[in-house]
Order: sequence, then C-alpha cells, then structure tokens
Amino acid sequence: MNYHFADRTRNFTSSAVRDILAVTQQGNVISFAGGLPSEEFFPVEQVRLAYEKVFASGTGALQYGVTEGFLPLRGLLQERMKTKGIHSDPEAIMMTTGSQQAIDLFSKIMLSPNDIVLTEDPTYLAALQVFKAYEGQVYSVQGDEYGMDPQDLEHKIQTLKPKFIYVVPTFSNPEGKVWSLERRTALVELAKKYNVLVFEDDPYGEIQFDEGETYPSLASLDQERTHVLYTSTFSKTVVPALRCGWITGPKEVIGMMAQAKQSSDLHSSSIDQQALYFLMRDFDLNSHIALLRREYYQRMIVMRDYLNNLEGFSFTEPKGGMFFWVKADKQLDMTGLLPEAVRHGVAYVPGAPFYVANPQENTFRLNFTHSTPDKLKLGMMRLSEVLGNVGK
Amino acid sequence: MNYHFADRTRNFTSSAVRDILAVTQQGNVISFAGGLPSEEFFPVEQVRLAYEKVFASGTGALQYGVTEGFLPLRGLLQERMKTKGIHSDPEAIMMTTGSQQAIDLFSKIMLSPNDIVLTEDPTYLAALQVFKAYEGQVYSVQGDEYGMDPQDLEHKIQTLKPKFIYVVPTFSNPEGKVWSLERRTALVELAKKYNVLVFEDDPYGEIQFDEGETYPSLASLDQERTHVLYTSTFSKTVVPALRCGWITGPKEVIGMMAQAKQSSDLHSSSIDQQALYFLMRDFDLNSHIALLRREYYQRMIVMRDYLNNLEGFSFTEPKGGMFFWVKADKQLDMTGLLPEAVRHGVAYVPGAPFYVANPQENTFRLNFTHSTPDKLKLGMMRLSEVLGNVGK
Repeated sequence: MNYHFADRTRNFTSSAVRDILAVTQQGNVISFAGGLPSEEFFPVEQVRLAYEKVFASGTGALQYGVTEGFLPLRGLLQERMKTKGIHSDPEAIMMTTGSQQAIDLFSKIMLSPNDIVLTEDPTYLAALQVFKAYEGQVYSVQGDEYGMDPQDLEHKIQTLKPKFIYVVPTFSNPEGKVWSLERRTALVELAKKYNVLVFEDDPYGEIQFDEGETYPSLASLDQERTHVLYTSTFSKTVVPALRCGWITGPKEVIGMMAQAKQSSDLHSSSIDQQALYFLMRDFDLNSHIALLRREYYQRMIVMRDYLNNLEGFSFTEPKGGMFFWVKADKQLDMTGLLPEAVRHGVAYVPGAPFYVANPQENTFRLNFTHSTPDKLKLGMMRLSEVLGNVGK
Repeated sequence: MNYHFADRTRNFTSSAVRDILAVTQQGNVISFAGGLPSEEFFPVEQVRLAYEKVFASGTGALQYGVTEGFLPLRGLLQERMKTKGIHSDPEAIMMTTGSQQAIDLFSKIMLSPNDIVLTEDPTYLAALQVFKAYEGQVYSVQGDEYGMDPQDLEHKIQTLKPKFIYVVPTFSNPEGKVWSLERRTALVELAKKYNVLVFEDDPYGEIQFDEGETYPSLASLDQERTHVLYTSTFSKTVVPALRCGWITGPKEVIGMMAQAKQSSDLHSSSIDQQALYFLMRDFDLNSHIALLRREYYQRMIVMRDYLNNLEGFSFTEPKGGMFFWVKADKQLDMTGLLPEAVRHGVAYVPGAPFYVANPQENTFRLNFTHSTPDKLKLGMMRLSEVLGNVGK
C-alpha cells in the first residue's frame, strides 16, 4: 500500500549521521567520521561495579521511575555544575536519553511550523535535523572564530523574531572552535534584552586541552537562570551506550519539557541512571577526564602534524573537543571525494550537511579521538594519498 | 520572562499518569493506580548476570550503537514473535525506549495537525496524550466487550478518513477486555479494504491466565505485513527500569520511524538492549512468565472477591493483564472521591481521563499486580470502607 506520512516527514533528511555510523562499522575502513570517544579509555570495570551496586540496592531499583529522572543523580549533577558556575537545583534538571533528546524535547515544546531558530553556520547537523523535523525555519547568524557577530545577531533577533538561538560555544561541532568571553556575554545580554531563549549544547566542554583556560558556559552568565537552557551528556566522557544526558534551565521550561518527555517515552532507562549515580559518587570522574584530555591531546597532535603536511588545506588547531574542521583552499567537492577515500580505507564527514545555507563543499570534519595513535597515523597516510595532489 | 511555547503544548494534558506515580511513591498509601508489575518477581539475579555478560563482552559493547537497536536482540525477538504467528524480520523490528516511545514515534511520522485517529473508548490515556501532542483529532469507535463494532468502524473509516486506528485488543487498558477473533479479523479486513494502518499496542498479551486460550494478535492476521504495526515491551514481564520496547510492521513505516528516532534520541540505551539479549538467550523467560501468570491470577482472585462484596458496583473478571475496570451502578464522581480514598490509605485511577469523549465519572481502574496479597486485602478493606455505602 501507499503510506501517507505526516507533513513533517518531508523535512526528514536523516541518513548523514546514519551513513557515518554504517561506514564506521566496516572493519577495514579507518573512520574519522563519527563523533565517537575512544573505547580504550572506557572505565569498564568501574561501570560494571556501578551496575553491581544498582542490583544490590534492592528490587525497587528495577521498578518504573519518574519522568525527570533519578533524583539523587540530579543532586550530584547540581553539585557538579555548581563547580562550573552553573547554579541550578535538582527540580530544574531533567535526565534525557543523550543530549540529542534534550534538543528534540526542547524543539517539540518551542517550535510550531515556520517558527524561527538562529544558529551558527556550520553547526551540529543532527540539531538542524530536529529543527526541520518540527517544521522550524533555521537562519544562520554571521560569525567568526570568536563566535556569533553581536551586530548581526541583534539585527536578526529584531527582524526575524526567533523562538530561540541554538549554539555550541565550547569546542563546537563541527568547527571545534571556542567562543570568546566577550561574544558569550554579548549573546546572553542580547537574549535578555529581547527575551529570546538560548539553547547551549555542551557535549564537549569537559574535553579541554589547556587546564589553565576557563571558558564560562553561557548558563553561568545567566545568573537569574531565565534565558539559557544548558545541556550536556556523559556519552563523550564516560560511555556512549549509557545514553545519559541532562538539561537544566528555567523551571517553567523544564517542566514543559517533562510533560513532553512523559508522552515521548515516560522516562529514560532508570537502571542506567542509577548506575551513573553510583559511578559519579564513587569514581574519580575528574581524574578520568584529565586522562582523556591528555590522551586526546596527543591524538590531536598526531593528526595535526599530518594535516600540516597536506598542501592546499587549512585548519585551526582545536583547543579541545573531538574535531578538526578542514577547508580546501580551492574549490573541491569533498562529498564527491568520499567514495575514493573509503576505497583507500579511510572515512571523513563532508562538511556540506553542517551548513544552514550555501553548503561549502570544500570542507570536511575529522575526528581525532576514536582511533588509536597507530590507526590515526595509518588513516592519515591513506587520507594524504587521496588528498595529497587534489588540493594543490 | 514569559515563555512562548509551541501551539502543540496547548494540547499537553499530562499530569494524570504523573500524579498516579506521585501517589504511588507515598509510603503509607496502598496504590492500585499505576500499571506496575510486582517487584517480588523481578528476576534480579538473572538480570544482574545478563549485565555481567555485557561488561565481559568487551569495550565495544559500550560504544554508540545503531538507531534501530542491537541486531542480535532483534533476531531473538523475531524468533519469539514467530511462535505467536507474527512473521517479521530483524530489519523490520526497531527497539524503543518502552512501547510508549513506539506510540510517540509512530504518531510523529503519521500525524499532521487535525489528522484523525480512531480508538476504542475508553482507551490508554497516555496514547491519547501523544495523539493530542501532535495535534491529532481522536474519534472513538463504538464497541462492546468483544471489541470494536465493525459497522461503526467501517462507517467512521469512510466518513472520517483516519490516518490510523489505535487498539489494545488483548487485556486492554483500562478495561482489561479481550477482543474476539471475529472482531480482530473484521478490523484487519476493514483496514486492508480501506488502506488504513492499525497500531496494535500489546504490553499485556503475555499475562494470560488461561493457558488453553489463544488470542491471535492482529499482526498475525496481517499475513502480508502491510497494514498492522505491532508493539510490545519487557516492562511488564521482565523489569520496567530496562525501558525496552519494540515495534514491528511494514518496512517502509519502520524505516521512517527510524529516521524519527534518529533525530529524537539517536538510539536507546544499548547496554540495556545487550543485557536483554543475554537475558532472552540464557534465561527461561517462558517459565518466568508462567510464574507471573499464576501469581497474578491469585492476586486477581483476591481483588475479585472483595469487589464481589461491594454493593452497587459492577465489573467483568479479567482473563489476563493487570486491571479491573469498575463501574458504579449509579452516578458517582470517582474523581471527587479519590482524595477521600487517599485519606483512607488507598488509591485508584478515576476512569474519566481514559475517555475520548463524554467521560464517565462513575468508573475507575484498579491494578491487581503490584501489591502483595496481604496488601491487596488491606487496600481492598480500605477501599470498601470508602465505597461501601456510597454505591448503594
């Protein structure tokens, strides 16, 4: 039969991230495509012990839980965020199935068809997919390596009257850049001046190479906690399979999101949330993150050195996160070149799908966290074979 | 600030199920409200062993997974459904965060504002919440204890042109009734005649008291697998905290739902899915379900005997599932009586929110699976105190 789907499905673009995951599961291809953390550093034994504690805590641990998530875990998250200057309370924190679900639920309660979202350009492609799935209109704000241009932002807030502004200000995806304090402050001030909500997506903030630097989150600049929604996740720093993200922000907004979550899935896995609670309580997460920072920095350096030798391409060395964002100096179709790269046993993500408008085909994103240094070298040698001549 | 939410939030009714869960967490109230399984029978040790196997299987188990879910688990589900006459294949099966998410994702891909859904009346209230959250219009089909009336169904398909028909044909929620084979066949035939999709929600089908009876699922009657979506869950038969549901149906529909799931949460917890795989592989789930059937039958009998002594109320003895649906013979406001019941230390769900239109205030739902027989007796004595005189 012919299936007549809802209007919103016409905006489903899908497949970009799906194809990435499909490629990474082929054994002989070294994939720099996904945003995957390194499996060598998964604290498997500590995670195993945390689940042991869940099962030892009684049968009640396996019963239905509340939509907003396991309350003691939300208490620990409150404490952790406080050390980063984000003042919240457990009732204004909701657990989600990864931070992807936080983006989805927020969009679900905010966007009617044709409502406007302002973003950076390029930006996280799976966020663009969500906004389009709810039939939102996405417009990009001009910016540079320091963040959105406040003048263009103010102009677009005035003329487009957006429902919210979506940003990844710390080690952004895909560009890997960090907003300056001035740009952060300017964004929060404009949001307050015009009463626009800001959605701060921060999956990578913990993966910071220079321990001396501070990159205050937008949420920490919103002292009254009225305008900034902040989301993060343990997928990048602990293990992705847990799918434990969280969101905090104005209570009224979190409350409406909890209503949306109730009808979406009642609640996320509470076994996983309880395990995460024991892990955060008993495991030295900060030392673990310090290890990841050191190891990922080394991997970044390996990749950087190969990129430096690649003629005709430019990039900025990332100060944290998981990605290099690379531009060919001349017009190159990086989407068209991908099959050739895969034939050489290496994969990247073409940059085009990350753009809101006017995709720049001469860009691509490389992940440096997932592969071991040896595989990084081998993969970069393969990539250099493919790109060594075309970029000149 | 004033938050301007999306239009769809005007249809969020929420709170009914949330309030239920809130009541069940007060220690001294015996709650017959939630659809909770009994904690005494949770196979904690077997579940613990299953997670052990996940952590022993290597670090890859903790990495990101595919949106549709852990493939070997989908293989076992295919085999299990085959024993019930449902022929599927792993690519037409998707794992979800409980069957609630299957209802949500299906509605997301099917419903544009004002699209029509046909349901029974009363029906599962959290499904009604989903349809309204996507701004669908819900109309009920006339029916009786055997299921929907085929004449009224055909008339409403012709005149209302629904996007789909939502039913809980086996041990329905809230009525606890079972559709006859004739009504099942009639529904599937009408769905095929008019090319309308059927969404069969089957969380309770396994909890069947008379082992000799067979209640073929609608999916098993849709031999071509073109018109019926079938969803079920392990929340009722294993443990709710796992949040592992699944859906199967036409590949094109499942594929579109996978696109929706990708942007909703990327994938459900894959640690839990892998644990469920080991549990299904190594644990005698059928013996466990046989135990639940016997124990829940005993509990049902305890509650039935008290209900039989309650003058002025009528009910049908359930053949499975988790619920009694009780009607006062005269006009009684069961919503208004709930605070009085809670003061007496017992809770039920008023029937009104389960109705599509014209809520019958003289109805309520009682769960008999969650409380031990002793608590069932105590709770029913309390309820008899509250209702003993008002119903006469």
